[in-house]
Amino acid sequence: MELIDGKKIADTIKAEIAAEVEKMVGEGKKRPHLAAVLVGHDGGSETYVAHKVKACEQCGFKSTLIRFEDDVTEQQLLDTIDSLNADADIDGFIVQLPLPKHISEQKIIEAIDYRKDVDGFHPINVGRMSIGLPCFLSATPAGIIELLRRYNVPTKGANCVVLGRSNIVGKPVASLMMQKAIPGDATVTVCHSHTNNIKEICRNADIIIAALGQPGFVTDDMVKEGATVIDVGTTRVPSTLTKSGWKLRGDVDFDNVAPKCAFITPVPGGVGPMTIVSLMRNTLLAAQHTVY
Amino acid sequence: MELIDGKKIADTIKAEIAAEVEKMVGEGKKRPHLAAVLVGHDGGSETYVAHKVKACEQCGFKSTLIRFEDDVTEQQLLDTIDSLNADADIDGFIVQLPLPKHISEQKIIEAIDYRKDVDGFHPINVGRMSIGLPCFLSATPAGIIELLRRYNVPTKGANCVVLGRSNIVGKPVASLMMQKAIPGDATVTVCHSHTNNIKEICRNADIIIAALGQPGFVTDDMVKEGATVIDVGTTRVPSTLTKSGWKLRGDVDFDNVAPKCAFITPVPGGVGPMTIVSLMRNTLLAAQHTVY
Repeated sequence: MELIDGKKIADTIKAEIAAEVEKMVGEGKKRPHLAAVLVGHDGGSETYVAHKVKACEQCGFKSTLIRFEDDVTEQQLLDTIDSLNADADIDGFIVQLPLPKHISEQKIIEAIDYRKDVDGFHPINVGRMSIGLPCFLSATPAGIIELLRRYNVPTKGANCVVLGRSNIVGKPVASLMMQKAIPGDATVTVCHSHTNNIKEICRNADIIIAALGQPGFVTDDMVKEGATVIDVGTTRVPSTLTKSGWKLRGDVDFDNVAPKCAFITPVPGGVGPMTIVSLMRNTLLAAQHTVY
Repeated sequence: MELIDGKKIADTIKAEIAAEVEKMVGEGKKRPHLAAVLVGHDGGSETYVAHKVKACEQCGFKSTLIRFEDDVTEQQLLDTIDSLNADADIDGFIVQLPLPKHISEQKIIEAIDYRKDVDGFHPINVGRMSIGLPCFLSATPAGIIELLRRYNVPTKGANCVVLGRSNIVGKPVASLMMQKAIPGDATVTVCHSHTNNIKEICRNADIIIAALGQPGFVTDDMVKEGATVIDVGTTRVPSTLTKSGWKLRGDVDFDNVAPKCAFITPVPGGVGPMTIVSLMRNTLLAAQHTVY
């Protein structure tokens, strides 16, 4: 069993990006600039955005954080997006989700200029990814693909089972895994809450990508010997062992599943750090105008 | 075994659309207007476009056919698309594929205003379909879904195997079958040229959607008793029995597979007529501005 060290890979890629940024700056080009819009004080969102700002520093990016209270109106947010779209110094920006219920997330996502949509959530980027055209890949799926690439996990012709059909993980990672590409070229099955024989389907999988948000869902009786397991779950569960009173738990029963695996990602330290790195990579590509 | 009569369903839907058009016209609204751009004289393309023009008549639509010879330049086509985008009388239009090699099909597709893209090939429509937002659904996948709906084929929790991962059939129909919708909510597996155990995977399928373009690929040993088989293949094979010298063959060995099926589509007369009807439906929706 080999542990996929997302933290280590993420650090390596951030160093690669930082080197490229210094080269750009040395050539007289401007530093890539990522802006993040944060609404309210949700603990998870605060943490994610803080990590993103820190990653910008590590990559040598300029970053801007724009904060609003929970009572911001949809129109105020749309106006902010308009200014960010028009601001030539901003290469890319994100609006941290989830948003308060009185704001339409889809309306916000579609207001972002797709050429600055470094989260890859705009329908144009989603569509181009499905067709196999250059685009900003959604961050978590792109991070998963990069882990498979860097660990040389065989994917061509592999049976890949994706657990979950969310718009931000399940569907796009399924789409990437079935593309004519390496990593890719896998036979992909997407399972979800209405799947009847999920254990049996998983037992036939060479690669399981678990993105259900159900702690410990994937148990050892669902995993065949030598499989690769990618755990996208990050559910906060109460814990007496941490200062915060909670810890992150993945969708995989790691202790019992890991011994059967060829490769497995831990939670935390697996997919999570890669998600932020994908965002950094998209921002670099936006600054270099290599996608659009 | 019940034969899915695509021709009959298509005629029913065309009559439904025609009734709706007469109601619109009675209310003083304009007739829906579909334009088609045809380049060269490929036999298949000529036939498809002729069928589309005829379907427009049956639905009470106005139709316009714009023809170019094989030597048309990409710029001439792009200029034509610009005029069609700007023409307020045209509700939707298509550029019949394939195009000559000196023209980028993707560039042509992306030049079409997505609000007039009744073929549903523009990345915005592809992306919105994947996310589950209102859009112009790609015609063949939409036709397949409509057949499953009208024949009440159970899809929720069904194991659905899609053979082929093309941008115009395999990927979008997989996307639709996994959506939270009826028809939909299926467990979807996408197989292709690199799939190793395709026979075994098919034998576990409740629904097989074959879109490989390989005549007779699906044989009776790949189909379980009571399965539903949708045949999207339309390969022209030589025939001494027809005046044209060829006939259409599907991806399914119909004679041997049909007896095992709960439902099966024939070729021709199955999915084919539904594809054109989906285009008519998209044109009606465009004229009514119900999507955008």
